[in-house]
Amino acid sequence: MSGQYAALVEHLGDVESLGRIENVLGWDQQVNMPPGGAPARARQLATLARIRHELFVSEKTARLLEDAAREIEGMAYDSQEASFVRVAQADYDDEAKLPASYVAEFTRVTAEAHEVWAQARAQKNFAHFRPTLERIVDLVIQGAEYRGYSEHPYDACVNQFERGITTARVREIFEGHKPQLIALIAEVTRSADRVSDAVLRQPFSVDAQRGFGLDAVKQFGYDMARGHQAVAVYPFMSAFSRGDARITTRFYDNWLNPALFGMMHEAGHAMYEQGIGEALDGTILGTGTSLAVHESQSRMWENLVGRSRGFWQWALPRLQAHFPGQFDGVSVDDFYRAINKVARSFIRVEADEATYNLHIMLRFEIETGLVSGQI
Amino acid sequence: MSGQYAALVEHLGDVESLGRIENVLGWDQQVNMPPGGAPARARQLATLARIRHELFVSEKTARLLEDAAREIEGMAYDSQEASFVRVAQADYDDEAKLPASYVAEFTRVTAEAHEVWAQARAQKNFAHFRPTLERIVDLVIQGAEYRGYSEHPYDACVNQFERGITTARVREIFEGHKPQLIALIAEVTRSADRVSDAVLRQPFSVDAQRGFGLDAVKQFGYDMARGHQAVAVYPFMSAFSRGDARITTRFYDNWLNPALFGMMHEAGHAMYEQGIGEALDGTILGTGTSLAVHESQSRMWENLVGRSRGFWQWALPRLQAHFPGQFDGVSVDDFYRAINKVARSFIRVEADEATYNLHIMLRFEIETGLVSGQI
Repeated sequence: MSGQYAALVEHLGDVESLGRIENVLGWDQQVNMPPGGAPARARQLATLARIRHELFVSEKTARLLEDAAREIEGMAYDSQEASFVRVAQADYDDEAKLPASYVAEFTRVTAEAHEVWAQARAQKNFAHFRPTLERIVDLVIQGAEYRGYSEHPYDACVNQFERGITTARVREIFEGHKPQLIALIAEVTRSADRVSDAVLRQPFSVDAQRGFGLDAVKQFGYDMARGHQAVAVYPFMSAFSRGDARITTRFYDNWLNPALFGMMHEAGHAMYEQGIGEALDGTILGTGTSLAVHESQSRMWENLVGRSRGFWQWALPRLQAHFPGQFDGVSVDDFYRAINKVARSFIRVEADEATYNLHIMLRFEIETGLVSGQI
Repeated sequence: MSGQYAALVEHLGDVESLGRIENVLGWDQQVNMPPGGAPARARQLATLARIRHELFVSEKTARLLEDAAREIEGMAYDSQEASFVRVAQADYDDEAKLPASYVAEFTRVTAEAHEVWAQARAQKNFAHFRPTLERIVDLVIQGAEYRGYSEHPYDACVNQFERGITTARVREIFEGHKPQLIALIAEVTRSADRVSDAVLRQPFSVDAQRGFGLDAVKQFGYDMARGHQAVAVYPFMSAFSRGDARITTRFYDNWLNPALFGMMHEAGHAMYEQGIGEALDGTILGTGTSLAVHESQSRMWENLVGRSRGFWQWALPRLQAHFPGQFDGVSVDDFYRAINKVARSFIRVEADEATYNLHIMLRFEIETGLVSGQI
């Protein structure tokens, strides 16, 4: 293709580049930035978000979308060209409803929120974060009003993550599963008392945790020449291109699970981004198709592979080599049961993995607009 | 002030924010980015640089500069307002001569160059970097032609670092110093054979090097709540605001000097940035006034303090505590002589510190347009 379609792809490539730069700034903020950097970073992010928004919802985009659509008329629905124009038009229609000042303010407030949240978390002081959270919820509601909806304000929010899904449809899905899920959780937690996970709750060196975790995810296929692992308060994945998809990890001194299964989980997200076709890289199609599909990839590696008996038949001797003496005499079956032990918890990432679909949907509500990465 | 001047400051605050974001991307590229991230990063940087350039040399800037100048007419030369408008006008006059396409291309090529340089360095293979370096030199010359000059193309280059200085003036300064410098270097290197620096060339743990180095620069006044230290192939300082001025370090397993004096040097740059007045933060005046003044700050801490006898009277016991057994029986005088031992070298950062003025001027030529940080 050439002409108007090519011009649209090139123009939106600039928009996409600015969006990815926002991701770099967000990653840096959570991984490296000293506390003193917060005010300037919020200003930088707000400026960038406003400029990206203005470039995207410009007259130029509107004209190119129209001309490109005419140029590629008749191409198959699944062709890259038709897909690109269709997704770009939907993104444009959604974002054009937002004033630039709102975009800048939302970005500034959520950027400033990170430092406040980190302080509140360190102090175990929710009251410190509460006013910020209230301001964010107000802004999310305001965004829903700008975007518009037919039934429920949350329709406008969930559409950012799963295009076309509605609050009513989410309710319907979960109402259908509810009886079985409640029974399953009751059954699973009842039998959990018979399982010991003491072997996972020993003192573990951070270096050994990192070493084994990275070995495991490299075996999954996480390409470190196009990846990077760093420490952050909250684990997440952020991709700046298919050639640079990074994971962050939180290490506990005396509990293996969070770092190990967290690395598997985030590497699952990252491998999805690394697997994007080269032809799509740098375009608006060059990322995961939706949050639920993204989460399916991370959960597949974390749970279907990382918590499977087959994987640990291969991996347990390697774990024993990384932690000399700490897993001696532990059988694959013992280990398999320990890592699959389920308990109720107020912290969602520690909660019952059997309910992970519920978890995904809850996250829509918890995280609406709060995060820049895939968590 | 209000009105037009305030509008100018606000508008150029956006330009400045985009420039600082370029610094974040450059820092990340040298510290964290995996090799696979290079192509997309080059595109991101080129897009950002072009947009920053277009925003800066826009009609809006020209009009605001004119209106603000009229509004503040009569204010003292040294007032913040008059200084701001004067510097902004000079920056504008300089940058308005460059086409946006040139700015994007220059940014893209220098961004891509980093990965090529790092590979060539690891392979000790200059031929691998040579074509890239030639392309950069061509672009720098092209930039000089766009900018214009009266005598020498390098006048247009050096003006980026020391506004108003000329190649002729640089030559004049060094011609005046040449006889004394040559005699001094000869004398200093002759007597150097009598000094042993073996104590600095032992195996040193990286953790202990980092620990002592950070302790030292914190004592200098480097504020880690507004700073950060990371590892990079080439040490540099990069500031994203007065609240976020970062240093990078290269550690050698068996030589103390590069990391230790490098940290002092870069912390000198960083303290200069941390010391910027709050009223100037985020504005075009919120950074070092010139490269030579910046370098004077880094050299002051590295050499006038860090290589002084007085400092080591205080610091040597602390060094001994960080490296148990490695500096036993070393006197302050021995140590003072060892760290001030001078030798000729092809690597400039290892070269005679007595010639550091010469060094600074040479760097103008070596690094023209190649770097984003202060090195």
